[in-house]
Amino acid sequence: MARRRLVYEGKAKILYEGPEPGTLIQHFKDDATAFDAQKKDVFEGKGVLNNRISEHIMTGLNEIGVPTHFIRRLNMREQLVRAVEIIPLEVVVRNVAAGSLAKRLGLEEGMQLPRPIIEFYYKDDKLHDPMVTEEHIAAFNWASQQDIDDIIALALRVNDFMSGMMLGVGIRLVDFKIECGRVYEGDFQRVIVADEISPDSCRLWDAKTGEKLDKDVFRRDLGNLTDAYTEVASRLGIMPKQNGGATTGPKLVH
Amino acid sequence: MARRRLVYEGKAKILYEGPEPGTLIQHFKDDATAFDAQKKDVFEGKGVLNNRISEHIMTGLNEIGVPTHFIRRLNMREQLVRAVEIIPLEVVVRNVAAGSLAKRLGLEEGMQLPRPIIEFYYKDDKLHDPMVTEEHIAAFNWASQQDIDDIIALALRVNDFMSGMMLGVGIRLVDFKIECGRVYEGDFQRVIVADEISPDSCRLWDAKTGEKLDKDVFRRDLGNLTDAYTEVASRLGIMPKQNGGATTGPKLVH
Repeated sequence: MARRRLVYEGKAKILYEGPEPGTLIQHFKDDATAFDAQKKDVFEGKGVLNNRISEHIMTGLNEIGVPTHFIRRLNMREQLVRAVEIIPLEVVVRNVAAGSLAKRLGLEEGMQLPRPIIEFYYKDDKLHDPMVTEEHIAAFNWASQQDIDDIIALALRVNDFMSGMMLGVGIRLVDFKIECGRVYEGDFQRVIVADEISPDSCRLWDAKTGEKLDKDVFRRDLGNLTDAYTEVASRLGIMPKQNGGATTGPKLVH
Repeated sequence: MARRRLVYEGKAKILYEGPEPGTLIQHFKDDATAFDAQKKDVFEGKGVLNNRISEHIMTGLNEIGVPTHFIRRLNMREQLVRAVEIIPLEVVVRNVAAGSLAKRLGLEEGMQLPRPIIEFYYKDDKLHDPMVTEEHIAAFNWASQQDIDDIIALALRVNDFMSGMMLGVGIRLVDFKIECGRVYEGDFQRVIVADEISPDSCRLWDAKTGEKLDKDVFRRDLGNLTDAYTEVASRLGIMPKQNGGATTGPKLVH
């Protein structure tokens, strides 16, 4: 393969120029970081799992008409995606109090929220991704009001779809983060889901035991991250379990 | 005067039961606190100044049809106000980057914002008054969507009025905080401005020199707080300067 032009390297992914205009190759690394990258580690196989899980979720979203950047998976660690003009916001949807929301508002972790809550965080590592409101977004023109309306509509549909998908395999979708970008189609502009949707960007709790099957396993030193992500992939029917498979029974439910 | 029932004592004010139903007496103390009350001091005369300045601003607001709780001043430190059902939000309007916004978004203090920004903070000392969005407010029912719409409309009118009043006396209105409450009139409910509007709750900079004439003088140890507030009252024409008066010229513009 010819040497590819690197477009962007993040903490867990690399973007390369794609094979045709308007496309990118998204490469999933095994690196995990938390707490503004103060905590770092490498989990063999994490990138492979996230590539498959994100493919699975985004394929489903594309099928129900929620537009995403995902085109097709290329290999174990890479997928072809549409190039977008990224909107510098992390869009968080929360169904259950956890993490920074629980801390900020003094809520007990695990409390079902009265309704889903959407939050925006401004993507800026130096500022530690501060929470912002639509007021800040509008004032600094990070997104137009139409963009915001589109993002909220997308985020709520992603939440509905993923809540169903996860609950179907015994997982509670506590919260998740998406990023969105603009694409231009003739005279039209629209907003689509970009980045990834994986256990790196979601909180996923076993519906019965509450066991964490997401990046909190790494953040809070609760076990092996690859095992947790393998469990998610396995339940979703997209990867056999490593070192055993279905016949050995659930590995992570102690 | 008969012994009055204390309704609420805050850091800088006390509320007593008023002389007739639906009223309260708001008493202004000389206490100043900052940084979650970790920094405390007493400035003789501050309460008197804030009582007069808040009276002046709220009287003006009432006159232009922006409803406030202010009824009339009773004495040096006290004013009669309408009892309201307080909405547990601090409503901040910002015209210029300063304080926590400048820090949070990495903006230079003093930068004119592209447009006024409204922020909400949930009033809870234990949680250090966290910033919240309309999503949190709606989810936890701290205010209805109608309340929020009313609050935003009030906040923007207060901003217009105060910007004009201050600019007229050579002061730049950087930002301010209001609190709002509900009153019930027959079958109707409406939202009015409550609490106080004073240099305790505003950032006021001399339009020419940038000198701070507000509580930041205390927060940042920039001089005598009473002198700064006296300057504001004096420019607004509501208090003669202490120890001198107009004939000695501006005291604080060094």
